[in-house]
Amino acid sequence: MRPSGRTASQIRPISITRNFTAHAEGSVLVEFGETKVICTASASDGVPRFMKGKGEGWITAEYGMLPRSTHTRCDREAARGKQGGRTLEIQRLIGRALRAAVDLKALGEHTITIDCDVIQADGGTRTASITGACVALVDALTFLRKKGSLKTNPLKHMIAAISVGVYKGEVIADLEYLEDSDAETDMNVVMTETGKLIEVQGTAEGEPFSFEEMNEMLEYARHAVREITDIQKAALA
Amino acid sequence: MRPSGRTASQIRPISITRNFTAHAEGSVLVEFGETKVICTASASDGVPRFMKGKGEGWITAEYGMLPRSTHTRCDREAARGKQGGRTLEIQRLIGRALRAAVDLKALGEHTITIDCDVIQADGGTRTASITGACVALVDALTFLRKKGSLKTNPLKHMIAAISVGVYKGEVIADLEYLEDSDAETDMNVVMTETGKLIEVQGTAEGEPFSFEEMNEMLEYARHAVREITDIQKAALA
Amino acid sequence: MRPSGRTASQIRPISITRNFTAHAEGSVLVEFGETKVICTASASDGVPRFMKGKGEGWITAEYGMLPRSTHTRCDREAARGKQGGRTLEIQRLIGRALRAAVDLKALGEHTITIDCDVIQADGGTRTASITGACVALVDALTFLRKKGSLKTNPLKHMIAAISVGVYKGEVIADLEYLEDSDAETDMNVVMTETGKLIEVQGTAEGEPFSFEEMNEMLEYARHAVREITDIQKAALA
Amino acid sequence: MRPSGRTASQIRPISITRNFTAHAEGSVLVEFGETKVICTASASDGVPRFMKGKGEGWITAEYGMLPRSTHTRCDREAARGKQGGRTLEIQRLIGRALRAAVDLKALGEHTITIDCDVIQADGGTRTASITGACVALVDALTFLRKKGSLKTNPLKHMIAAISVGVYKGEVIADLEYLEDSDAETDMNVVMTETGKLIEVQGTAEGEPFSFEEMNEMLEYARHAVREITDIQKAALA
Amino acid sequence: MRPSGRTASQIRPISITRNFTAHAEGSVLVEFGETKVICTASASDGVPRFMKGKGEGWITAEYGMLPRSTHTRCDREAARGKQGGRTLEIQRLIGRALRAAVDLKALGEHTITIDCDVIQADGGTRTASITGACVALVDALTFLRKKGSLKTNPLKHMIAAISVGVYKGEVIADLEYLEDSDAETDMNVVMTETGKLIEVQGTAEGEPFSFEEMNEMLEYARHAVREITDIQKAALA
Amino acid sequence: MRPSGRTASQIRPISITRNFTAHAEGSVLVEFGETKVICTASASDGVPRFMKGKGEGWITAEYGMLPRSTHTRCDREAARGKQGGRTLEIQRLIGRALRAAVDLKALGEHTITIDCDVIQADGGTRTASITGACVALVDALTFLRKKGSLKTNPLKHMIAAISVGVYKGEVIADLEYLEDSDAETDMNVVMTETGKLIEVQGTAEGEPFSFEEMNEMLEYARHAVREITDIQKAALA
Repeated sequence: MRPSGRTASQIRPISITRNFTAHAEGSVLVEFGETKVICTASASDGVPRFMKGKGEGWITAEYGMLPRSTHTRCDREAARGKQGGRTLEIQRLIGRALRAAVDLKALGEHTITIDCDVIQADGGTRTASITGACVALVDALTFLRKKGSLKTNPLKHMIAAISVGVYKGEVIADLEYLEDSDAETDMNVVMTETGKLIEVQGTAEGEPFSFEEMNEMLEYARHAVREITDIQKAALA
Repeated sequence: MRPSGRTASQIRPISITRNFTAHAEGSVLVEFGETKVICTASASDGVPRFMKGKGEGWITAEYGMLPRSTHTRCDREAARGKQGGRTLEIQRLIGRALRAAVDLKALGEHTITIDCDVIQADGGTRTASITGACVALVDALTFLRKKGSLKTNPLKHMIAAISVGVYKGEVIADLEYLEDSDAETDMNVVMTETGKLIEVQGTAEGEPFSFEEMNEMLEYARHAVREITDIQKAALA
Repeated sequence: MRPSGRTASQIRPISITRNFTAHAEGSVLVEFGETKVICTASASDGVPRFMKGKGEGWITAEYGMLPRSTHTRCDREAARGKQGGRTLEIQRLIGRALRAAVDLKALGEHTITIDCDVIQADGGTRTASITGACVALVDALTFLRKKGSLKTNPLKHMIAAISVGVYKGEVIADLEYLEDSDAETDMNVVMTETGKLIEVQGTAEGEPFSFEEMNEMLEYARHAVREITDIQKAALA
Repeated sequence: MRPSGRTASQIRPISITRNFTAHAEGSVLVEFGETKVICTASASDGVPRFMKGKGEGWITAEYGMLPRSTHTRCDREAARGKQGGRTLEIQRLIGRALRAAVDLKALGEHTITIDCDVIQADGGTRTASITGACVALVDALTFLRKKGSLKTNPLKHMIAAISVGVYKGEVIADLEYLEDSDAETDMNVVMTETGKLIEVQGTAEGEPFSFEEMNEMLEYARHAVREITDIQKAALA
Repeated sequence: MRPSGRTASQIRPISITRNFTAHAEGSVLVEFGETKVICTASASDGVPRFMKGKGEGWITAEYGMLPRSTHTRCDREAARGKQGGRTLEIQRLIGRALRAAVDLKALGEHTITIDCDVIQADGGTRTASITGACVALVDALTFLRKKGSLKTNPLKHMIAAISVGVYKGEVIADLEYLEDSDAETDMNVVMTETGKLIEVQGTAEGEPFSFEEMNEMLEYARHAVREITDIQKAALA
Repeated sequence: MRPSGRTASQIRPISITRNFTAHAEGSVLVEFGETKVICTASASDGVPRFMKGKGEGWITAEYGMLPRSTHTRCDREAARGKQGGRTLEIQRLIGRALRAAVDLKALGEHTITIDCDVIQADGGTRTASITGACVALVDALTFLRKKGSLKTNPLKHMIAAISVGVYKGEVIADLEYLEDSDAETDMNVVMTETGKLIEVQGTAEGEPFSFEEMNEMLEYARHAVREITDIQKAALA
């Protein structure tokens, strides 16, 4: 039923390449099948103004797509002069998700800025971004610890994300572009390595979905995230 | 346990005032307790460029807060020169939710623009907006039918929305500001009058949440929406 | 001659509702007939940078119209990304007028921010805004005095505003939309409760006007403001 | 009493140089004492979208100050990325005033764009702009007639403008910067050559002003505009 | 003398990877040592408005740097809301250079949009961009020819670019970041494969440079471009 | 061959009027034939943030064209809300060139802001701007020395600029608009009074140019700048 011949719950091959570029404290190329995202984590001293004086750190994220990461060229947001609503929504999601992975008190007054730049898009860019960014974040935290800026490891747990959905009446996991653009329901799930939920965003693109479909999608997500967490850990080993 | 003394699943008094202002085809003041939002639905001929020639209609939404709808004054977005990420996220949600309530083919080449302007905020402004906007939308569709622009009623089903969350370890419904700003998990649910899901957006603000909490929140939402749908129908009667 | 049957000098019923919303230090709904504006006054410590170190306070104003306050929907300025020339002109007028009502030295280093948001427009929104904002300002000053932040009352005199004009060759007061859009001359007058002038802005929309018409318009304004001042005082009593 | 030794009603030397730059259909350097403004009128075929199909023409204006036209350098608005409220207010005034000088029907579907750029500022830039722009406009209309684009002269009457005010308790005419920055009341008056009023904008900067002062200011303006009209006509002769 | 031990005229290892991403008609990863740029060429029908009706094609370019392509993170231009002067200057240069490589008449009414996105920066990003973009352009032209949209090959000649400069008093070629940030003179040269000049941009960052240095820099550029052209041709073979 | 009848190497009459406007520390009207630019130099204490604490000064430049300095009216950049790429490129060039004329250490913590505003354009506005701005800069430095803010003269050498190009197959100097819009190659050269190069920007608009043409253009520039430097010195005498 799926264009790729995958089974309903089967995710695409996932690959995580660390140290992909030279300058960032953490730099990862993450691939979910044909979706490819460069995720960097930049560590800097100090925190944004609204966080000052709390003795806590901050994690924030920005997201972008190269204009020709997509089938037809999309506008360059820098040239248009503003980031679109979809971009803002995604980068807010990435930032929120990664903050949930870290004990901000233990991070102290440091800021980690995550940049997720899609160089090739085939569905699931936001879940690939979160998954790759978590690995880049771990590398940046390690950098800070080696440098002596952190006494303890502020990471509370790894996080990973997956898209699930209802496609031609069936629940499936890890939608690629062809499925995504035709799905009845599209849901992104961010979870901890311990199987708890951090973010659930489900949307009926066509028909409303039932509580049963909701539960089945969550189950598929649970299995996928378990698998992805193993890949993250292998990459970090 | 709740500041207001409400039970865990108890929603606030909800009031829906139709024809609140004079000019819009649909104009509603919706109140969820102390949260007050003016929702208008404006009908116009034609559709945006990207929809032209499909013989379908379009529904879009914009959202704003009066600067002093909040405890301390927030910046006027028009003066700052751009809408923030939260605003864009909310208005995209409202638009998506209402499009899911309507058969766009049956709407023909008409555009309905929803405006939700919060005049007083006490938590749940986006769910109140969706709830009120649906009633304004019904009035605007009725206007188009009376005018002879529509042959059939494009409304597929009423929709309504509610916030649920985990607060001090307990699942509760319809969070007011004091609860919202202190909740571990915050989830917005949009449903049809027939009990199906249109949108689920759950976020762990503090600790991750479990599948059990997820399910309990969805159950609370299901009951709340049933109640709210009755209030919408009474207002329209 | 007038669409409403009013006499030439007759103003519309004016209503002033204090404490219209909950959070602002001053919050007023002002109605000039079918024109309805929410005016809030927000008090905060400190002054903008250009006023620092003078030991004086500051009063500033912002103005907006809900997109569907008008007969046909107007663009949301926040979405367009800038405030139009008319909006800037009106909010500069409101701010200037209210600063003329207050002894800024006696206000000390506090800022009062006025927000005037039109929820329904039928002509005269700027004069209604000034009239309502003055009452909201008085409430905010009272708040500051009760809180002990001010030792004396910085209010020098109440102010109020009215539109006058030449319509079908006759001088009239308090133009509603139908008159306003068809008037030869349109003039807005802001005065003190003691009958002195703060601001006069007269524009020939069609034919130039004579010195005699100018004087007659000012006389109409003088009488109207006297009446409006009484309504303001009754509301504050 | 006046810094320049002028009498209360005495205006500064006014000079109008036509054909100041080469390319515009009308190009004028206007000087009110040390205030110097380049006013050009550009004629083009067609009208803006909102005027299309009415068979009428349009006149619009833009205003700017060179950054170092002022005592201390002011920001370049192009670099800041937006025109300030004062600029928008002035250019709206200039456009309105000049439209009142012309029979738009007789202008046919042509647009005249007025640009007023202050190269040296010493008070009264907006009144100098209107005065100079009217001469540039006449030249542009003559250009269109010579070219055969217009059959009749659409000019209804010349217009000119002057500032008047209350300074140290006395009414004076044509305020220079030192007076303007210290005046109790500042009023700009635009009149036709026939002595009728087009625009009156009076503002109490300090104390409110009386009806008597209002009348005296208008009288001063009437005499000044008569004088200025003669200078305009001499320049055009 | 050079940090890398290179001789004065020695360029870095250059690598050109075609089909680097999947969707663009031409997609190249170009590496000049540690400088890495993704260059895509997107072909579309039609031309921008200002080119319409001439029967000619158009080539335009956009340039960007990933925020962490640099040693310390630079702002994301999309988030700042505008492209900086350096970015605009570079993308105008790239577009001009590539238009000089193509017979726009032979291209017909097609637009080629070049995107150069720096993923890792170590000096010479603009010359690497032009060099890589030319290869991507050739692939896009081949695509159009295979598709039957072009009858002839519009390419007039390959182009390539190199930076040269004066560093510690010596003329050198292909400056890396350490050299670039410390050079007395920095010059970018774009040439055809036939050894003619398309663009020369030389800037004295510190001391002015002599006519002799100018000539020596041009000679170094001539040799480097000859070498680079061979690499481009090998990649295309 | 040239529209004006000039010989190939002949520059237009150049005139430099100092103290053109009253307020700036340096104010120059520079004319290269029909090209006229107002150049002001504004001196202020302190430096931009990125220069703080180095004990050095800063020179920056802004450039603009009056909307009707050109044959057909161009948009006002302040109204469009941003400066175009050409404007940014030119003002970056002017700033760089003038910084190369000054010993920033000797300037101490002062900023000189150059404004070049074109009031009439006929080709060569950027080279006229640099030439005029250098004179305005000298006046501003003299002002600072007279005021006692500078102990030594920070000027290292005068600079001047000229455009050269290839037009109808011939190398020519100081292109006017008719030549510029039709030239095969256009090159701007900035030099010191001592005959060294500061900036060379050559662009093939049509056919690529040869090394021989390059050299010939540089020779023409050398002679022209020598002549222009004399005119600058005469103006300053």
